[in-house]
Amino acid sequence: MSASRSQVYDLVESDWFKNTILGVIIFNAITLGMSTSDYLMDRMGGVLSVVDNLVLVIFVGELLLKFYAYRMSFFKSAWNIFDLLVVSLGLLPSQEGLAALRGLRVIRAMRLLSVVPQMRAVVQALLDALPGMGAVIVMISIVFYVFGVMATLMYGTAFPEWFGTLGRSLYSLFQIMTLESWSMGIVRPVMIEFPSAWAFFVPFIIITAFSVLNLFIGLLVNTMQDAVEEETEAEFDNLRQLVRDETDSVDRNVLALMEEVKALRAEVNAANAKREG
Amino acid sequence: MSASRSQVYDLVESDWFKNTILGVIIFNAITLGMSTSDYLMDRMGGVLSVVDNLVLVIFVGELLLKFYAYRMSFFKSAWNIFDLLVVSLGLLPSQEGLAALRGLRVIRAMRLLSVVPQMRAVVQALLDALPGMGAVIVMISIVFYVFGVMATLMYGTAFPEWFGTLGRSLYSLFQIMTLESWSMGIVRPVMIEFPSAWAFFVPFIIITAFSVLNLFIGLLVNTMQDAVEEETEAEFDNLRQLVRDETDSVDRNVLALMEEVKALRAEVNAANAKREG
Amino acid sequence: MSASRSQVYDLVESDWFKNTILGVIIFNAITLGMSTSDYLMDRMGGVLSVVDNLVLVIFVGELLLKFYAYRMSFFKSAWNIFDLLVVSLGLLPSQEGLAALRGLRVIRAMRLLSVVPQMRAVVQALLDALPGMGAVIVMISIVFYVFGVMATLMYGTAFPEWFGTLGRSLYSLFQIMTLESWSMGIVRPVMIEFPSAWAFFVPFIIITAFSVLNLFIGLLVNTMQDAVEEETEAEFDNLRQLVRDETDSVDRNVLALMEEVKALRAEVNAANAKREG
Amino acid sequence: MSASRSQVYDLVESDWFKNTILGVIIFNAITLGMSTSDYLMDRMGGVLSVVDNLVLVIFVGELLLKFYAYRMSFFKSAWNIFDLLVVSLGLLPSQEGLAALRGLRVIRAMRLLSVVPQMRAVVQALLDALPGMGAVIVMISIVFYVFGVMATLMYGTAFPEWFGTLGRSLYSLFQIMTLESWSMGIVRPVMIEFPSAWAFFVPFIIITAFSVLNLFIGLLVNTMQDAVEEETEAEFDNLRQLVRDETDSVDRNVLALMEEVKALRAEVNAANAKREG
Repeated sequence: MSASRSQVYDLVESDWFKNTILGVIIFNAITLGMSTSDYLMDRMGGVLSVVDNLVLVIFVGELLLKFYAYRMSFFKSAWNIFDLLVVSLGLLPSQEGLAALRGLRVIRAMRLLSVVPQMRAVVQALLDALPGMGAVIVMISIVFYVFGVMATLMYGTAFPEWFGTLGRSLYSLFQIMTLESWSMGIVRPVMIEFPSAWAFFVPFIIITAFSVLNLFIGLLVNTMQDAVEEETEAEFDNLRQLVRDETDSVDRNVLALMEEVKALRAEVNAANAKREG
Repeated sequence: MSASRSQVYDLVESDWFKNTILGVIIFNAITLGMSTSDYLMDRMGGVLSVVDNLVLVIFVGELLLKFYAYRMSFFKSAWNIFDLLVVSLGLLPSQEGLAALRGLRVIRAMRLLSVVPQMRAVVQALLDALPGMGAVIVMISIVFYVFGVMATLMYGTAFPEWFGTLGRSLYSLFQIMTLESWSMGIVRPVMIEFPSAWAFFVPFIIITAFSVLNLFIGLLVNTMQDAVEEETEAEFDNLRQLVRDETDSVDRNVLALMEEVKALRAEVNAANAKREG
Repeated sequence: MSASRSQVYDLVESDWFKNTILGVIIFNAITLGMSTSDYLMDRMGGVLSVVDNLVLVIFVGELLLKFYAYRMSFFKSAWNIFDLLVVSLGLLPSQEGLAALRGLRVIRAMRLLSVVPQMRAVVQALLDALPGMGAVIVMISIVFYVFGVMATLMYGTAFPEWFGTLGRSLYSLFQIMTLESWSMGIVRPVMIEFPSAWAFFVPFIIITAFSVLNLFIGLLVNTMQDAVEEETEAEFDNLRQLVRDETDSVDRNVLALMEEVKALRAEVNAANAKREG
Repeated sequence: MSASRSQVYDLVESDWFKNTILGVIIFNAITLGMSTSDYLMDRMGGVLSVVDNLVLVIFVGELLLKFYAYRMSFFKSAWNIFDLLVVSLGLLPSQEGLAALRGLRVIRAMRLLSVVPQMRAVVQALLDALPGMGAVIVMISIVFYVFGVMATLMYGTAFPEWFGTLGRSLYSLFQIMTLESWSMGIVRPVMIEFPSAWAFFVPFIIITAFSVLNLFIGLLVNTMQDAVEEETEAEFDNLRQLVRDETDSVDRNVLALMEEVKALRAEVNAANAKREG
């Protein structure tokens, strides 16, 4: 590592650098919030825009420094990639005035989650729960896909707004899974045209509800087991050690007794030998 | 088992056969998805239809081979029966152009759940949870039936769309149980005619919510108990073995000591006898 | 107990009597279900009505026999009181043709829950969970009452349909607690008149959701604890017995050794005494 | 403590004082409930108003006595501060006839929660659960804030009623998080203007649902762990004591045996010495 690179490394790892960046993120989160107010935008929209670009420059500079310091191992941390992505969104051209792009820029404030260690821990804990849910999520996806294709083929022509394409069907099925207006909003109107539509939607609700329930139970049992395991393992280790210590202490006394008896036997034999000798 | 049947048995049990069928299922799932697109149907609807029939022929062939290989034990596996049913749905006449039948054909893609071992395990785990829930499900069914009959008799005449027949009442009660639009959509309108209808519906909601909650708790406690039991049982076995080993080790020393003392006693007696003899 | 009373006691406790009553209950549940169908009522309404009265006579007879057999201890069982109540509902005059009374009669079919032992066990388990929830339920009731009075005083005049009386407010708050149309249906309209109404309803939702969550957690932890406790207690008893047995076995050997040593000592002393004597 | 202050201290700590206050609170809760009825207000509105002011005087007197008795340590109990706040609300000027102020006065009945010890325990248990949820709540707040700013910037102009200001966006997002009319009421209308709005709202729902789920699981695991820990710790202590007692008992016998052998050895040596001497 060259001297300058090593200096940059020390810089980006220093507490004051991290705290400064955290300060900038919080400051930016506030200015982004202020930019939602028409009143403030009328009076100081120019300032807010300048501040926003300045913050963007600071973030780009920070990431460049980090990249210079860590080289390719920069990409080993998912948090760095996250930072890179959310900062990049701010670099997209916004002259077209697309509201969506203006909005996406705000995701940058999510860096609060990637920069504060406690928040990182919470997000990490959430993500750690995902792998254990993999199989059930794949299963729910297959169920969604199959019901989505079926709904499109069966109800697509009559209700194009809800089931016209596979995408619309999947969205409607997601809405139905969350139970939002599933009956009054969707299934009752569908049943006017297709009286037996309940036989499609009610099983869908029961299957997905039951699957989500199992997802939840699996997650809960895993978390619980990890928590309990650690603790009882310590108790059991403790107890095993006690059993070993206590019996060893008895054993030592028994062995000392053995020495005593052996010594006695030796003396008796010696005395007998002497007497007979 | 005849030579040819044995060969067929080896074939349907071989990995490449299973993987080929899995490939066909995935391919078919994609083509079924493509058939939901009007754009694609206009351009290659004929091809998709041919492909679909081809896949159906493959599936029928696969099931015939399996049936030839396993004979009656084919029906011992619930998965085979599931495969048979969802493939059969594709053989139903569809010349009437019934949208429902076109849709039912798609259930075939659910074979992804019955063919991939990991998916089978997930579905099996879901189904294994059912028996423990049996009694509560029967109870909820009785509550549903009684409230359904009551709602039909009390509100059927005034609100035929919701409670006109027993079937409609059961559907409406299911909707109310999921809390979808229960008040604004159903109970408030009913209360205009029958001001005390809340005394029917609010207890129904509380009873079913409480029952479903208990269903869930029962399921959770069972799963948790199984998970914890296995683990602590191993710990306890381990501990019991340790206690046995440790005390046996002490015991061995005590018994060795006994031998020593007995030998000593014999020697002392022999010496005494000699002296006196 | 007189001979005849004893005979009646044996009768009402006999399996065939119980099974007959169960059969009548199931048969009545079916005929009550049939009476919801206009088609069947037109063709065999008279028959159904006769059957219903016949069943009622049987039930009254059954209860009279039971009362004769058990005397006052009849009222000791909550199930008997439940049976008495639901059967009595059928005796209420129905000539006024009140739909509500026709409906109430159907509760009789709930006897399936009080007569089948497995169902009794499930209901008992549900009821057993209630006492542990007492304090939280009282707390939720107080919160409901206070918010109900406040809503009536604040929004009653402007929205009489939802908050006009304390009863209506409590019903609306129950609806809001179940999250049904709380925002689009109730709070948004209220906020047009009272812009800060969210500061009343959002805390209400959070408080009740959090309370219900805790109710649920308390219930779950209790059930879990009971289930785990029983099991681990057995394991611990088992382990304690093992520790006792194993150490007693060592102890027995040590005591046998003591006998041996004492015997040896006695012999040595006897020999010495003889020699010196 | 002066004599009079000590007397006042004894007074406010006495059971009959506490019970009297509890009686007044319950009585006031009932009169506040009665004041929601137009019928009763017409007939005895004056009486109710006098009663209300009388109760207020009693409460103010009670708090003054308590403050005199405890001095500054009055403020050490959060319950006293709660009492002070809810009583103070009744002292706000109400001549403007603001419905809101009339309503706020009712919070006073919440003193049932702060005065009855069992209720205090329940509320305390609820509050105790909060700290463990801190990190996740902060995370959800950040997610809410970022999505709120984004929604305001992206959809604020087109849907001012729902997303016009940051406050409205946060309220709408809270509604969406509770799943109330999220699709039919909000997202589908938004999707007419912005077809890809689902890509904003569906992830929001999944993220918040998953976070709340984890909040719940964390809470549950903590409660469960505390409950189980206490119990198994007692069992383990018990078992450890048993192991110690049992091995000590063996040990004592071994040591007694050692004494015996040593005595024997001394006798043998003495006999040998004598013989040889």
